[in-house]
Amino acid sequence: MVNVGVIGAGLMGSTHARLLATAIAGAEVVAISDAVHEHAQRIADELDLSTIHADGMELIANPAVDAVVIASPAATHEPYTLACIEVGKPVLCEKPLATSAAAAKRIVEAEAAVGHRSVTVGFMRRYDPGYADLKARLDAGAIGAPLLMHCAHRNPSVHPFFDSAMIITDSAVHEIDVTRWLLGEEIVRATVLTPTPTSKAREGLRDPQLLLFETAGGRLVDVEAFVSAGYAYDIRCEVVGEDGTLELLPPATVALRTDNAESQAIPPGFRERFGTAYLHELQAWIHSIARGSEPDGPSAYDGFAAAAVSEAAVASLESGRPVDVAL
Amino acid sequence: MVNVGVIGAGLMGSTHARLLATAIAGAEVVAISDAVHEHAQRIADELDLSTIHADGMELIANPAVDAVVIASPAATHEPYTLACIEVGKPVLCEKPLATSAAAAKRIVEAEAAVGHRSVTVGFMRRYDPGYADLKARLDAGAIGAPLLMHCAHRNPSVHPFFDSAMIITDSAVHEIDVTRWLLGEEIVRATVLTPTPTSKAREGLRDPQLLLFETAGGRLVDVEAFVSAGYAYDIRCEVVGEDGTLELLPPATVALRTDNAESQAIPPGFRERFGTAYLHELQAWIHSIARGSEPDGPSAYDGFAAAAVSEAAVASLESGRPVDVAL
Amino acid sequence: MVNVGVIGAGLMGSTHARLLATAIAGAEVVAISDAVHEHAQRIADELDLSTIHADGMELIANPAVDAVVIASPAATHEPYTLACIEVGKPVLCEKPLATSAAAAKRIVEAEAAVGHRSVTVGFMRRYDPGYADLKARLDAGAIGAPLLMHCAHRNPSVHPFFDSAMIITDSAVHEIDVTRWLLGEEIVRATVLTPTPTSKAREGLRDPQLLLFETAGGRLVDVEAFVSAGYAYDIRCEVVGEDGTLELLPPATVALRTDNAESQAIPPGFRERFGTAYLHELQAWIHSIARGSEPDGPSAYDGFAAAAVSEAAVASLESGRPVDVAL
Amino acid sequence: MVNVGVIGAGLMGSTHARLLATAIAGAEVVAISDAVHEHAQRIADELDLSTIHADGMELIANPAVDAVVIASPAATHEPYTLACIEVGKPVLCEKPLATSAAAAKRIVEAEAAVGHRSVTVGFMRRYDPGYADLKARLDAGAIGAPLLMHCAHRNPSVHPFFDSAMIITDSAVHEIDVTRWLLGEEIVRATVLTPTPTSKAREGLRDPQLLLFETAGGRLVDVEAFVSAGYAYDIRCEVVGEDGTLELLPPATVALRTDNAESQAIPPGFRERFGTAYLHELQAWIHSIARGSEPDGPSAYDGFAAAAVSEAAVASLESGRPVDVAL
Repeated sequence: MVNVGVIGAGLMGSTHARLLATAIAGAEVVAISDAVHEHAQRIADELDLSTIHADGMELIANPAVDAVVIASPAATHEPYTLACIEVGKPVLCEKPLATSAAAAKRIVEAEAAVGHRSVTVGFMRRYDPGYADLKARLDAGAIGAPLLMHCAHRNPSVHPFFDSAMIITDSAVHEIDVTRWLLGEEIVRATVLTPTPTSKAREGLRDPQLLLFETAGGRLVDVEAFVSAGYAYDIRCEVVGEDGTLELLPPATVALRTDNAESQAIPPGFRERFGTAYLHELQAWIHSIARGSEPDGPSAYDGFAAAAVSEAAVASLESGRPVDVAL
Repeated sequence: MVNVGVIGAGLMGSTHARLLATAIAGAEVVAISDAVHEHAQRIADELDLSTIHADGMELIANPAVDAVVIASPAATHEPYTLACIEVGKPVLCEKPLATSAAAAKRIVEAEAAVGHRSVTVGFMRRYDPGYADLKARLDAGAIGAPLLMHCAHRNPSVHPFFDSAMIITDSAVHEIDVTRWLLGEEIVRATVLTPTPTSKAREGLRDPQLLLFETAGGRLVDVEAFVSAGYAYDIRCEVVGEDGTLELLPPATVALRTDNAESQAIPPGFRERFGTAYLHELQAWIHSIARGSEPDGPSAYDGFAAAAVSEAAVASLESGRPVDVAL
Repeated sequence: MVNVGVIGAGLMGSTHARLLATAIAGAEVVAISDAVHEHAQRIADELDLSTIHADGMELIANPAVDAVVIASPAATHEPYTLACIEVGKPVLCEKPLATSAAAAKRIVEAEAAVGHRSVTVGFMRRYDPGYADLKARLDAGAIGAPLLMHCAHRNPSVHPFFDSAMIITDSAVHEIDVTRWLLGEEIVRATVLTPTPTSKAREGLRDPQLLLFETAGGRLVDVEAFVSAGYAYDIRCEVVGEDGTLELLPPATVALRTDNAESQAIPPGFRERFGTAYLHELQAWIHSIARGSEPDGPSAYDGFAAAAVSEAAVASLESGRPVDVAL
Repeated sequence: MVNVGVIGAGLMGSTHARLLATAIAGAEVVAISDAVHEHAQRIADELDLSTIHADGMELIANPAVDAVVIASPAATHEPYTLACIEVGKPVLCEKPLATSAAAAKRIVEAEAAVGHRSVTVGFMRRYDPGYADLKARLDAGAIGAPLLMHCAHRNPSVHPFFDSAMIITDSAVHEIDVTRWLLGEEIVRATVLTPTPTSKAREGLRDPQLLLFETAGGRLVDVEAFVSAGYAYDIRCEVVGEDGTLELLPPATVALRTDNAESQAIPPGFRERFGTAYLHELQAWIHSIARGSEPDGPSAYDGFAAAAVSEAAVASLESGRPVDVAL
């Protein structure tokens, strides 16, 4: 049994804690912490947890905690992750790994100094059945060498504090990781274009955005990132290869025919869309810990690379010009 | 140029007249007739036709008329078709060819006595791109020998005068023809089952119905015939063979993503669903006349066989038992 | 932690044991048994289990076993289930609950005598995301009152020992349960029709079959049961209601465009198709045990009713006539 | 009856001539011309035409010719179109209207000098049922104001003489027209990016290309233009609006389930994909001539604008930078 401590009792932290407590084999949640005590208390009550820590550092130090999930605000990711590395506890850190590429790089170096992998970054899409199937077929040569990739990332809406850069760092960062993972190449250049924004977005929010990525091998990737799309949470991805294309299918399971139309539901949010991915991500992480093997999920380096590409994209958003990625 | 006279200026007659006048190469509408003069006049005005006949027999006798379309009430089909055969003019008769199998057989025999084909029956589905594609693939062996066929015929609603037997003779008769044509075998037995009727139908209407057909070669076909389906005009057909299945796809051309769903339109009625089929049916008929060749569309015998199967099905609807088809 | 003993180390037993050991929260597999010792040993080795029982009765009696999964041959289901009831241990019995309706009824009565539910029958489709979604929408009134249901159950192939009756008792029995569950009504009559069999089936196997069920409320259900379908494991279900229809979508996650076609994979077998359903079935069962509540999955009565309908259908297969269900 | 002369007996010219002769109401083909006499002779024989002109100018001057279709090499489009304007005969000119924006502008000015429209440019996609449906829904406000558009234009292969600029001027020019027509705005800037080319293309061909268009109202359009895509002729288009998206569906009519997959055919070439569009384009053109009204299809100005955008895109292909469109 792997005893897990969860730092952060917000939306993501409570989701992870619930899954670990009720749907993951071989795991037990033994401690939780949150800057807001009531948030931690609510989850502790719900899941019948005995230990609440006022502070993530305390939780990490708790000898009853074998492994740590970090789902606290982004600014805390670096110190918590470094602390986990220091005490040698496996850690699953929600994205972003850190708030800057430089900070992420410090984590990569700290882990390298220890000599073995202990950090996993929460790019859960790699565990989505659709993406996993697409990756398997791509690697099996179903469409030959990839040339282009078309993506769309649409959120129904975002919090009022969401700014134009966060469309990249919080939303499109998933496509950044997916690009690197699917194509097996680094992104070397980013360009961000912005059409006339939707009137449904907060004044000043440059939404939608069209991100263009160029990889080391010369592949081109376009990503529509649109966080005020209104209609649903909709994620699309098509890889175009020399012999054909592979495309994610929407995850609907039932067709309804009524009122002169056949319709299929599109998920309202990321938890509905990627619920299975979170489950598989956590189960794979727990299995790797139980086996005593190194984790094979997204690494600290993946977190760093995503941060570096995000920084280039944000710079392009500001300058309107292509920006090289500093890896 | 083939000069066509159209008997009947109702829904079907006016549809045919309009298509012949505006969308069919090599045809001209030269005369129209209808028991209700105003109906004939309205189409004559719309299409700028000079000749209106008070009577279909007059139209058939008009030497300016090369070929005849019959779209008048079913009871008139037999005498008009026989008259066309007698004067040797090609005739396209809307289904049903006649109001009984016996009457249809008289037409078959009259045509046989003349020694060459001049009668075409308006089973337009054979000209629908979807059905034609399905037939071509089936004949090419894409799924091996056919074993079963599943069909659904759903109308949004029907006129109050529609009775339970008309669900067979007016609606499912298309599936009867499609079965014979696709499978290349006669239907030898019919069984009609009726579930609890929809509360949306007129009191007493046994709607929906489940029709079961057995062919000479032992294939089984089930047809849901549901004329108060409400939601749309929806036609489905799947043939199950030894190596796979072939199924009609719905004819939508655009997907709309909004309000948490992706939706595709289903046609509201038969004209939207089979508009292209009517066009191809008429064009093929005109081409065959212009070439001077015998028509190769649905024959008088096809009309007779459909009538015979319909009669067996109606008998089964009344008796609740399987009824053999008298061919 | 719920300590589970698994009776049967064949295909289903090993599947359940693996899931319980590696993918289900709150469960541990503590014992296994199989008539063939090597089969039990192989799973014990794979999952690192310490206890192998030579006999299912021994396993049931083992005090370390809290709950029992029965996945041994059908003939053993009745005695094992009765033994579990007797000792008061929750039991998940693979379908069929027993080899006859009479035997299943004895289990229903034995459980009733104890006064609380302890038996769950492995009709896992109720846990499939697609069926569950369809059921939720149907119950929410998305298509109004149901009138008809069309199903297809296609296996690529079956073992040579599979006979014509097993197409009903082993395959279509799932549709029998699905019908009762979705429509919320008992099936009162069954008719089985058989077209010319596929040439790909073993000589004498009446495959495919067309099953017709009539429910207490007069709904009609047709089921194509085809176990030599060759092309894939394909499960289809459409419910037709007064206001529209609901239909299962195929479970593909990726579209491949190559060689002049867009294609989507269809699962090769039931484990790929219903893997998630098995997972949810087991997790729900373990949760109910851990909570100390009665199970809310398919009951002994559901197992009995399915057996009674199966018997009527088999009788109809033999007689060629409709047969009333004896409930 | 509109008597049509067809200039050019190549692939497009013979397609148009055949459609006009066999599938268009109210038209007759009375003359054909081609620089290669045998090509003209072959079509004349096939369609039983009496008049072959050695030269397009002769054909235009022929008093028996009411209207002209130009489907000869692009370099001849300008003089032939100007000649038609001069003699006052309606002309349907295949795209491109001329080989440069300047040349196209001369045609616009010549037509304007006459004072009424006589030129139609063969952007047939506007007549495709899918595009027309998308346009109608967009205009009806189904997705609110458009923000972005994603397109793909994939040919299986091209002739060896096809160069990188022709990917824009011959293929993506259709998306240029579609963009202007759907969005109702001019394209003001073009950028062309090129990934590592497919190894299946001729050495030196920069294929695929990613074209980016910015409209006067600030909408962004991305077009994948890939003429060595190999797998099929595949055209995709999605418009993203403030309230949802509209997307073309592939034109398949039948689903085949076999070999562990469900597949739908994708057309092999543009004639299969846009056959219906050509039919509707010609019929609408003939109807407008027969009515004596001005044509309402794509105008000379549309041809000029498409040429101007193409020139900007070709300049961007060469420079690697965004290029403003000179309208």
